[in-house]
Amino acid sequence: MKRTILFSSDLDDPEAWAQAVAARRPELALTEWNDIADPASVEFALMWKPPACGLSRFPNLKGIQSLGAGINQLNLADLPAGVPLARLVDSSLTETMVDYAVAATYRHFRAFDRYERDTRARLWDYVPAPVKAQFPVGVMGIGVLGGAVARQLRDLGFPVAGWGRTKREIEGVRCFAGTGELPDFLAACRLIVNVLALTPETTGILSAGTFDLMRTGSFVVNIGRGAHLVETDLIAAIEGGRIAGATLDVFSEEPLPPESPIYRRPEILVTPHVAGGISPLTAAETVIENYDRALRGEAMVNAVDLARGY
Amino acid sequence: MKRTILFSSDLDDPEAWAQAVAARRPELALTEWNDIADPASVEFALMWKPPACGLSRFPNLKGIQSLGAGINQLNLADLPAGVPLARLVDSSLTETMVDYAVAATYRHFRAFDRYERDTRARLWDYVPAPVKAQFPVGVMGIGVLGGAVARQLRDLGFPVAGWGRTKREIEGVRCFAGTGELPDFLAACRLIVNVLALTPETTGILSAGTFDLMRTGSFVVNIGRGAHLVETDLIAAIEGGRIAGATLDVFSEEPLPPESPIYRRPEILVTPHVAGGISPLTAAETVIENYDRALRGEAMVNAVDLARGY
Repeated sequence: MKRTILFSSDLDDPEAWAQAVAARRPELALTEWNDIADPASVEFALMWKPPACGLSRFPNLKGIQSLGAGINQLNLADLPAGVPLARLVDSSLTETMVDYAVAATYRHFRAFDRYERDTRARLWDYVPAPVKAQFPVGVMGIGVLGGAVARQLRDLGFPVAGWGRTKREIEGVRCFAGTGELPDFLAACRLIVNVLALTPETTGILSAGTFDLMRTGSFVVNIGRGAHLVETDLIAAIEGGRIAGATLDVFSEEPLPPESPIYRRPEILVTPHVAGGISPLTAAETVIENYDRALRGEAMVNAVDLARGY
Repeated sequence: MKRTILFSSDLDDPEAWAQAVAARRPELALTEWNDIADPASVEFALMWKPPACGLSRFPNLKGIQSLGAGINQLNLADLPAGVPLARLVDSSLTETMVDYAVAATYRHFRAFDRYERDTRARLWDYVPAPVKAQFPVGVMGIGVLGGAVARQLRDLGFPVAGWGRTKREIEGVRCFAGTGELPDFLAACRLIVNVLALTPETTGILSAGTFDLMRTGSFVVNIGRGAHLVETDLIAAIEGGRIAGATLDVFSEEPLPPESPIYRRPEILVTPHVAGGISPLTAAETVIENYDRALRGEAMVNAVDLARGY
């Protein structure tokens, strides 16, 4: 007999998830809330946000698997009390984040940001192709994810610097640590990629004080969190010429509202929080593991501490 | 005593070339035509196009070194009869072409082309990040340059196919050859990068018949020659939905005139023939070698057969 997992997401492909799960465990059926005949049969939910009907309608829920690595999209107060919740961490997330960092770095390195504007203005304005030796890239945050970004850019031939709270060693990457070394790190880069975790210390780190320490004509890529960036400071730094362009994936408010001044700066590319993506093909393994654990009443992989909120 | 090399280019940096040449041979001075006191002293020219005064004013010219890998920018009939001409081939050219191919591939792979349009329209429209396994890339032309492009994209994790006139073997790349295998090659790709040489057989190869064999929603990158592409066919293929976007570096007419319909398709990025760049730092070696050969009356490296025209 089929067992039902509640599936709820506007951002993920239900078919792709259903197939990836069924390929491993044919008895598991992913079903959206309005197709579920007996709500009492639902013991597990795989979701980005709760369904329109809410979760209280499913009295036997034993576990909730978020479809994101974070849980910022969820209002914890809306979740049924006592039901464990897990974040979803998967190798495909690192891979897609690294891909995005490569795409954004090459966009600025090869002046595609500028040529996008020139094309729309029907302007043909040649600038000689740069060499990588003159385009050092800095990665802010060099843990698992940032380390992977730094190594990939290093392998592609860019001079790479890394900066984090604590000193790290990455072969072929010049590593800086702490507030004291931040100015030297920033002065060494033409482009920074932010992948820091959001903490009280890193909130607002991409602000006027930081931009002032960068070289004139530098670039900013943000795939960390929206709250790392002071958006008005970035706009001012672009208007002042210090920053030449930016590729931003995360924002103080998402979706970024149409009235945001960010959209009005032609030097900024907005992507709608797409840098990191989780592929059902690999992540279904973790989801099934957590399904089994939740039904046995065991702690899930990457369980959220609901008291701490992360 | 200094010896004078005539330098003529609107696209290359005279200072960077003068320094790179002088670093190896301090007695060689690169000079622009209006700074040359004695035209009879000029025995060698390093140029993109002839200077405004023409070349007939330099009676002792023994060799001309093009600043490009091609000589299409030159009208051979305008060059002084009997003076040998050489193309400039350098490792930095391959490197910058590969970089451009990577930049353009990631631009389409990560939907930056689409998000550029969405940003200007203040639109937030999420699409899940793709996986490389579902984004096979095809390289048209798999000689020295195309082979380097194919290997780099393969190393970055894309499934890569290659197509050329003759069968080649590249590890990890599915190679196709000849007109007979072109349909299978095209059907296998989501994006094609053209780096073919321009011959009568390849002129106009990027045309309606080719686009019709590609999957719906495919992408085209042209870093070969403008004459490979039938521009009106590309526009029609985009309007018909077969081609989702293009990144073009070369055009039937350069600079691409402002009235070109190419500029009016928001799915197309125009770059002003910047894909391949030659760095004076490495290429000065070849220029000096050819200077020596020309003055000794020997055949230059990559000499052009003026009878054949290439």
